[in-house]
Amino acid sequence: MTQTKRYTSPTLTAFVEQLFEKAGADTEVAQVVTRVLLEGELLGHRTHGLNLVSRYIDGMLSGQVKARAETLEQVSDSGISSLFDGHYVLGPYCVSRALDSAAKGATAQGIGIAVVRRAAHIGCLAAYLKPFTDRGLIAMVYSSDPSVGVVCAHGGIDPIYTPNPIAAGIPTRGAPILLDVSMSTVTLALVGQCRDAGSNLPHPVLMSNEGQVSDAPADFFSTPPGSILPLGGQTFGHKGFALAILVEALTSGLAGHGRKDGPEQWGASATTVVIDPRFFGGLEAFTDETSFLSKLILGSRAVDPQRPVRLPGQAGLKLREQALDEGVGLSQKVLDDLNQTAAQLQLPALT
Amino acid sequence: MTQTKRYTSPTLTAFVEQLFEKAGADTEVAQVVTRVLLEGELLGHRTHGLNLVSRYIDGMLSGQVKARAETLEQVSDSGISSLFDGHYVLGPYCVSRALDSAAKGATAQGIGIAVVRRAAHIGCLAAYLKPFTDRGLIAMVYSSDPSVGVVCAHGGIDPIYTPNPIAAGIPTRGAPILLDVSMSTVTLALVGQCRDAGSNLPHPVLMSNEGQVSDAPADFFSTPPGSILPLGGQTFGHKGFALAILVEALTSGLAGHGRKDGPEQWGASATTVVIDPRFFGGLEAFTDETSFLSKLILGSRAVDPQRPVRLPGQAGLKLREQALDEGVGLSQKVLDDLNQTAAQLQLPALT
Repeated sequence: MTQTKRYTSPTLTAFVEQLFEKAGADTEVAQVVTRVLLEGELLGHRTHGLNLVSRYIDGMLSGQVKARAETLEQVSDSGISSLFDGHYVLGPYCVSRALDSAAKGATAQGIGIAVVRRAAHIGCLAAYLKPFTDRGLIAMVYSSDPSVGVVCAHGGIDPIYTPNPIAAGIPTRGAPILLDVSMSTVTLALVGQCRDAGSNLPHPVLMSNEGQVSDAPADFFSTPPGSILPLGGQTFGHKGFALAILVEALTSGLAGHGRKDGPEQWGASATTVVIDPRFFGGLEAFTDETSFLSKLILGSRAVDPQRPVRLPGQAGLKLREQALDEGVGLSQKVLDDLNQTAAQLQLPALT
Repeated sequence: MTQTKRYTSPTLTAFVEQLFEKAGADTEVAQVVTRVLLEGELLGHRTHGLNLVSRYIDGMLSGQVKARAETLEQVSDSGISSLFDGHYVLGPYCVSRALDSAAKGATAQGIGIAVVRRAAHIGCLAAYLKPFTDRGLIAMVYSSDPSVGVVCAHGGIDPIYTPNPIAAGIPTRGAPILLDVSMSTVTLALVGQCRDAGSNLPHPVLMSNEGQVSDAPADFFSTPPGSILPLGGQTFGHKGFALAILVEALTSGLAGHGRKDGPEQWGASATTVVIDPRFFGGLEAFTDETSFLSKLILGSRAVDPQRPVRLPGQAGLKLREQALDEGVGLSQKVLDDLNQTAAQLQLPALT
């Protein structure tokens, strides 16, 4: 993949914020969305980073995606628990506001939860967590999309639900543990990438519409469509399947807006939970424990000595540090897309 | 397995409660523990049902396990969040009290959480959930045991942590969805059962102490010991591994008592979270959504037409209904153990 020259994080931030604002976003929304997408890019989530800017702005310009802070509606609030209706506002803004609301509950009474329905695309869940772990809080995000069905039930053939990721940021004495895992074997994005590259998947994790396990993208992109196996695959898929149902319940179930409503527009149900360890055994005991566990894990012998055991998020945080030090290189395609969007909005290109 | 005649649920309840009381438990503790163990039995969890009664009472008689309600200490309480120190009180009593505390928070403000450290063995997590789903609440239980390490890190060899189950009860318009899944491929109990039966595991989910994947229990019960692969196995084990770390953080991390303390006595860290859908999109919208999802799942075509797709907990709830209708048959071994315990306590046998 061709890489561009490296840009500083403030340069990219200013450029992308300006794009969002010119396209009609409030300053606050532009700032929050830019921060989340840049964070995804820094953590190395290239499919959920700055490549999304042009797509998000296309959505705004077509009118499908909203970008005013006031459009995000707080439907209920107990002080600890709240529900937001995103009305298809840019997802990173919806989820960030939900996390802030959950964190308020957590710092007041130990735990807070905020649910969002109808958020526009919410990007990379891992990109939301560090601001909370930096404050000594555990932050969790669950999401599903009731307008999409691509994963099958355990033992079933038909596609029913989304990969339904669970993400969490866990403070330690050092770098946080950042996990972000789907309850399916693979994501839809990977299946699409393999199709585009003309290759099979690395493992047989697809189910054809006739009930055959397959590694061929064509067996997924068929009519009727195939599906993706739950985490655990054919043998232990009852576990990924059960956890995915839990994610559906915590997101679309609590949101009061889900598959029963047959939504046609892509839109996430997202649930955020924040916990403050100070209300339990204390922050010090908590980070002592998570640091001790981290040390046990990192000290464990590797099956392949060339690939030492790592903590979730460790590789991403290293890329992030490097990018902050040396600047962020974009793929040529992302830069071209950004500059095309800039031209469309009559703004100067990023050079 | 030889089955005894069938006993009614009230007969078994009265018999087991009497055993616990005679062995020194408070009435309240005896009642709660009996209810949870019988519920495990009814749901078909034969390894986490009434077979545990004699083991629990042995623990009480040896002095390791406590059975007075007042020994369970509430360390903190914000109204929504609380921490208990079980001081090795019978686990089902500790977890039930924690769930009650979390449910109080949930019905007051939408969500409640209670963490327990040093609970004695807590039995079958699925057995705690139905009283809460019957009230229209989502109930979740996470657990780990910081004195035990049997599962390896993804890509690692050495055993580090426990299978770390996640359980949840989800209300629908009909029977609840009850899930209870470990974040490892298999549980320690299964590895032990295979060893005792002289058989290999059905799948290669063990890691020998030399880093070879294996299906032979001998590769686990070796010196130094082998380990169990995380959920997801060799290919997708980073997901089960990440979720297991989250469970460690939510249980032993919040409890302020974990692996860092090097506990030697078997004792669970358990975290309970209860959510009331009425504070979000409403109970009706919630159960409409979970029922709709259930219908989609149950209506999906099965890979093997002889094995229709099922919801988590469905098989157990069917066994439960049957047992309540027709009585509960015990294995001859469980009956013998119960009666030996009764004799030891100078109580009449169950006939």
